[in-house]
Amino acid sequence: MDEYFMKEAIRLAIEGVHAGYGGPFGAVVVKDGRIIGRGQNRVLADNDPTAHAEMVAIRQACAQLGHYQLDGCVVYTSCEPCPMCLGAIYWARPERVVFGCGREDAAAANFDDAFIYEELGQQPGSRRIRTEQMMREGAMQAMQAWQDKQNKIQY
Amino acid sequence: MDEYFMKEAIRLAIEGVHAGYGGPFGAVVVKDGRIIGRGQNRVLADNDPTAHAEMVAIRQACAQLGHYQLDGCVVYTSCEPCPMCLGAIYWARPERVVFGCGREDAAAANFDDAFIYEELGQQPGSRRIRTEQMMREGAMQAMQAWQDKQNKIQY
Repeated sequence: MDEYFMKEAIRLAIEGVHAGYGGPFGAVVVKDGRIIGRGQNRVLADNDPTAHAEMVAIRQACAQLGHYQLDGCVVYTSCEPCPMCLGAIYWARPERVVFGCGREDAAAANFDDAFIYEELGQQPGSRRIRTEQMMREGAMQAMQAWQDKQNKIQY
Repeated sequence: MDEYFMKEAIRLAIEGVHAGYGGPFGAVVVKDGRIIGRGQNRVLADNDPTAHAEMVAIRQACAQLGHYQLDGCVVYTSCEPCPMCLGAIYWARPERVVFGCGREDAAAANFDDAFIYEELGQQPGSRRIRTEQMMREGAMQAMQAWQDKQNKIQY
């Protein structure tokens, strides 16, 4: 079954390239042997830097389930998830992730995945995109509002 | 000006908590001194694990610009971006990022940001969410389709 779903992720990736939607990436989310989310990279088609295949598939699957988590699901993706997509996967909490190409294959095709993995390991002040902290005390008021909220859903 | 925009990010965060949209996080994207994207965490409201404040603000700003990059923009966020949001920021390539609370403050409020940063540094086989590679050769067909594509936009 893994092979069947990975083939679908690859098919979506190739279709997306030919259609001009964006980069060569496809993904599916599977629950109980059934596809509940399909994604293609749509960065160019939608002018949306967050529209990676995994993100599109995760959002569709969550809409299908009516839940913000992917309990018991498997994410199949034609290429190793970039940090954004892997972060989304951790928030969605599927059971398992299966990928085809690796981040080095993406780097060879001039995608920044490997570079971004490196940057994320740096402290904020050492990153290539200038990053600063300010007004922590003021921002903590939002955290406090959350802590004080009754009957909240902790996700 | 930094203080003005950070205050707006914090205001959005607090409003979102009271409205029950999701966690205590707000963000704005600013270009040429003007807000072109606003975001609140909407994970619960939209059943969408990717609907973090920064993601919502980045998507809105990109829609506003009609472009998949945020050239010359600054992202203000009430809390240090999680790996998903920081990944999105790297793909969107703004000029600068300013944040209020830190990842340790998010961790203290039971959000997984710090945990996910740790996981991303692990090799795929060592992560808490089981991650496997398969069918690399088949998946490389998608990469090859991209390499062969004429007149493509490399982003």
